[in-house]
Amino acid sequence: MHRYRSHTCGDIRESHVGETVRLSGWCHRIRDHGGLLFIDLRDHYGMTQCVVDPDSAAFKMAETVRSEWVVRFDGKVRKRPEGTENPELPTGMVEIFITDMEILGPAAELPMPVFGDQEYPEDVRLRYRFLDLRREKLHQNIMKRGAIIDSLRTRMKNQGFFEFQTPILTASSPEGARDFLVPSRLHPGKFYALPQAPQQFKQLTMIAGFDRYFQIAPCFRDEDARADRSPGEFYQLDIEMSFVTQEDVFQAIEPVLRGVFEEFANGRPVSKVFQRIPYAESMLKYGSDKPDLRNPIEIVDVSEEFLRDDVNFNAFKNVVKAGGVVRAIPAPGSATQPRSFFDKINDWARGEGAPGLGYIIFEEQDGKLVGKGPIAKFVPENVQEIIAKKAGLKAGDAVFFAADEKNKAVSLAGKARVRIGDDLGLGDKDQFILCWITDFPMYEWNEDEKRIDFSHNPFSMPNYDHDAFMALDPNDKDTILSINAFQYDIVCNGYELSSGAIRNHRPDIMHKAFEIAGYGSDVLEEKFGGMLKALSLGAPPHGGIAPGIDRIVMLLCDEQNLREVVLYPMNQRAEDLMMGAPSNVSPKQLRELSIRLNLPEK
Amino acid sequence: MHRYRSHTCGDIRESHVGETVRLSGWCHRIRDHGGLLFIDLRDHYGMTQCVVDPDSAAFKMAETVRSEWVVRFDGKVRKRPEGTENPELPTGMVEIFITDMEILGPAAELPMPVFGDQEYPEDVRLRYRFLDLRREKLHQNIMKRGAIIDSLRTRMKNQGFFEFQTPILTASSPEGARDFLVPSRLHPGKFYALPQAPQQFKQLTMIAGFDRYFQIAPCFRDEDARADRSPGEFYQLDIEMSFVTQEDVFQAIEPVLRGVFEEFANGRPVSKVFQRIPYAESMLKYGSDKPDLRNPIEIVDVSEEFLRDDVNFNAFKNVVKAGGVVRAIPAPGSATQPRSFFDKINDWARGEGAPGLGYIIFEEQDGKLVGKGPIAKFVPENVQEIIAKKAGLKAGDAVFFAADEKNKAVSLAGKARVRIGDDLGLGDKDQFILCWITDFPMYEWNEDEKRIDFSHNPFSMPNYDHDAFMALDPNDKDTILSINAFQYDIVCNGYELSSGAIRNHRPDIMHKAFEIAGYGSDVLEEKFGGMLKALSLGAPPHGGIAPGIDRIVMLLCDEQNLREVVLYPMNQRAEDLMMGAPSNVSPKQLRELSIRLNLPEK
Repeated sequence: MHRYRSHTCGDIRESHVGETVRLSGWCHRIRDHGGLLFIDLRDHYGMTQCVVDPDSAAFKMAETVRSEWVVRFDGKVRKRPEGTENPELPTGMVEIFITDMEILGPAAELPMPVFGDQEYPEDVRLRYRFLDLRREKLHQNIMKRGAIIDSLRTRMKNQGFFEFQTPILTASSPEGARDFLVPSRLHPGKFYALPQAPQQFKQLTMIAGFDRYFQIAPCFRDEDARADRSPGEFYQLDIEMSFVTQEDVFQAIEPVLRGVFEEFANGRPVSKVFQRIPYAESMLKYGSDKPDLRNPIEIVDVSEEFLRDDVNFNAFKNVVKAGGVVRAIPAPGSATQPRSFFDKINDWARGEGAPGLGYIIFEEQDGKLVGKGPIAKFVPENVQEIIAKKAGLKAGDAVFFAADEKNKAVSLAGKARVRIGDDLGLGDKDQFILCWITDFPMYEWNEDEKRIDFSHNPFSMPNYDHDAFMALDPNDKDTILSINAFQYDIVCNGYELSSGAIRNHRPDIMHKAFEIAGYGSDVLEEKFGGMLKALSLGAPPHGGIAPGIDRIVMLLCDEQNLREVVLYPMNQRAEDLMMGAPSNVSPKQLRELSIRLNLPEK
Repeated sequence: MHRYRSHTCGDIRESHVGETVRLSGWCHRIRDHGGLLFIDLRDHYGMTQCVVDPDSAAFKMAETVRSEWVVRFDGKVRKRPEGTENPELPTGMVEIFITDMEILGPAAELPMPVFGDQEYPEDVRLRYRFLDLRREKLHQNIMKRGAIIDSLRTRMKNQGFFEFQTPILTASSPEGARDFLVPSRLHPGKFYALPQAPQQFKQLTMIAGFDRYFQIAPCFRDEDARADRSPGEFYQLDIEMSFVTQEDVFQAIEPVLRGVFEEFANGRPVSKVFQRIPYAESMLKYGSDKPDLRNPIEIVDVSEEFLRDDVNFNAFKNVVKAGGVVRAIPAPGSATQPRSFFDKINDWARGEGAPGLGYIIFEEQDGKLVGKGPIAKFVPENVQEIIAKKAGLKAGDAVFFAADEKNKAVSLAGKARVRIGDDLGLGDKDQFILCWITDFPMYEWNEDEKRIDFSHNPFSMPNYDHDAFMALDPNDKDTILSINAFQYDIVCNGYELSSGAIRNHRPDIMHKAFEIAGYGSDVLEEKFGGMLKALSLGAPPHGGIAPGIDRIVMLLCDEQNLREVVLYPMNQRAEDLMMGAPSNVSPKQLRELSIRLNLPEK
């Protein structure tokens, strides 16, 4: 018989009754039934009930074991006595009558239990992550994470992509977030950086002719943590393809994401088609470029209605006159809500820094819609009707208004949409709705500096005839601000899974794009000279995307915090409490790296 | 038709003749045949011959393109004229008659060509890696690397292993090589380290109950580079399993490695069974713990023969009397070699710091073996016969001798074995022979400090009864030095692919093991306290291994340098010439990280 086990703790069935088996695992739960010991033995594969009676040669030793001790049990499989079967456990029809045992790994007093569902503080859970990971939910999350990554990988390969490994010790990136730096020992005073993403490498891989790249890529950003953003490192499904249009990227990625969501959604519906929503439309309808489409509310613009001569609501009218907007956020079915519902939404809005949200409640009177509520009296009935029609409102619905300078109104309306949807319990949460946000503007107006600046990614290809782009007058603000980029986001249930773009692979267009944003060729050459050089030596048109893996896993595991889907996460202060990182290092190490500490004064 | 291509450059066959197709790719080779342009268009998938004649609308533009320009071609597939087919190319029966074209990415003057086999200096190749990667051999190597990793992953999963991701920002490791450090912004004066290997994490994953772990793991060591060791980062197939003996590890890993070698060996034979060679035997027979078993030479010990009263070769006799050894290295079939062969081996040995290698050449005279050569006369015929028998020598063979203090003689004999094997062209190089080296000693005698020290890995489980080990007297040097560890290496063709071990999972045995090596519990607790704590909270017996992936790929690609199998390698000075890493960083970045430079004086 094998030194440690003939079967795993998930293997034994009624068909094994009568056999002598050997199991090893953790003592999950120990019950003493009047001298008879019941020990649930647990391993990765399952749980098996073991029984030790006082006549067993193992009894004396078995009496000494405690929860989480690792033991080997030898014994005979028998049917559980009638009425004691556990149909919820695959091994629940049988138990093992123990005849021999060995203690393989005793456990000292546990800082947190494994058995049971009791909550434990984050610092204990992270410091003893190896115990926390023995708990069923977290253990299953991590296994699901692995299965999701396997599935992503298989689906990418089935789509004709090849997997590559790009360097982790690389150059500091002049764009984006803060780099983690690594001092070089051989080159005093110089530093490597950990990649924020393998963006340049994947583009170089296209320039090298590999055609379809993907990588389950570790990425590093020295940014402060959030629940949905790990401090330090995270993984993305990094993707790039050559000789493609935006449509090709969509066609390549949609089946991968839809497939993996369907596979792991536990039966919840997943978008069959990923809706494509232009950025401007998304900002209008959802007040966000990462809309949660489970929420059925759609915002509409009612600025012109409040400009009308027959509307006398000056609070809004003046906003619109000053160049602002009024957005209407429907609250379907909320007419029956108590006054406190509307007050709470208004309190919330004031907490967001807004003066409040005006609202109108629509009721039916004599067969027609009549608005009620604080601002209804300033809006004549015919205009109420126009607003109701625009916003798709009927009797029993209400509508809130966000009036402000455009960006603020958009943002407030977007948040109000979420808040109202949540408060009213609108939309089926048990589904995954994925969509593309497209047509991001290439440039935006920087009001502070009174100049044109890049809006999102300066390296995306403008969606504009190349020759016409090259001929643009940098002072032609209106034309320039109307240009969109071949840039897109993929969004699921309000989470941005990734940005992507068709890259600007033409050095001439890149120079022009930077010139328009007021950057000289010298800046471009200094910061991105290497990339420009590569693009000038035979570059194919290419584009890609990089969905965040941790976030996908989080969604599919129904978790709110990345910590629940990462094997060994750091805490919010970017510390690994289990390994004790970061930690002090020796003066010798610092000397070798030609650095010294420069501690802030206390 | 698609914006860029209806087919890839590897797709077109005779069955497409008459069709209008669109291809995009790189202009690999351009030939001007009296006004008729032949352009071999290349992409990742293949090469297609395109023809532009002066009547084509594309001719004028086609005349402007140069090597490595990226273009789109539209044209009609036609059969190549008889006699101009290229049977070596899958597309070699057809060509495309071009009717329209577009320049997608022009190329400036190339710092190195893609077409042709001309060698280029390393720094040019690395600086323009994206061009070098377009060359066929390197392109294929990188694709083969990907295929090998896919295969390893599939085989591991088929063996019941699960893949995990362990942190890359972690704690400085107190063992092993030099760490790469990452200054922490949030914790001034503290540093993360990049993992030299996920050793502690994989053990913690076992302690967390995951049972069978693997990872295609990036590892980082700040060590100077060698041809078979990348500077900076490398990948290993990191493996760990619970409730296993050494035999289980062998049984799990052998099929994975044998399978992947067989799959990618291009028909070269691969060991069906991995021979298991105890460390002591390997050091004797091969003078190395990483023997190249393609070389048939086996070293034997002939120390006692030179101690005999009837042997008068004092140079050797005195070595043995002083505690040294004499090792005999057979040189089969070398009797017919000219004198210069023996002189060259001797010159080489002197270059290695040895006084030279004595040798005897065996010939047949009157039906019996007779030794010739410089030291034959000091060895009577009957002893010559004993030596010949021990070393398996017959007429026509020779034997060299390495006589020295044991470690030196072992090492010299091992190198001489390689040298002689190479010079004589012994053994079939076109095969992969894999073997396990087992039974590494747990301890060794530190002659300088006159004390017992760990021999290899202090964290391996001693192959010794646990109770007896706990009871060992630390002064019982003979017993202690005879103890082996459950530690093993896997070796292929003279390359160590990996060490592995059954881990010491028992804190009490760990304390005892360190006590024997003269380390107090305080040292152990200070350096490895976290691991000890984890082992004390219910740890299963576990063990593993971590074969080097880059090295496996290098062997299977027939390359001598890792640079040829890594997508974006650094140079020997740990510089990424393409990305310009390492590089200077801004004073602001240093301030944020609470460090300053401490440059060596010039």
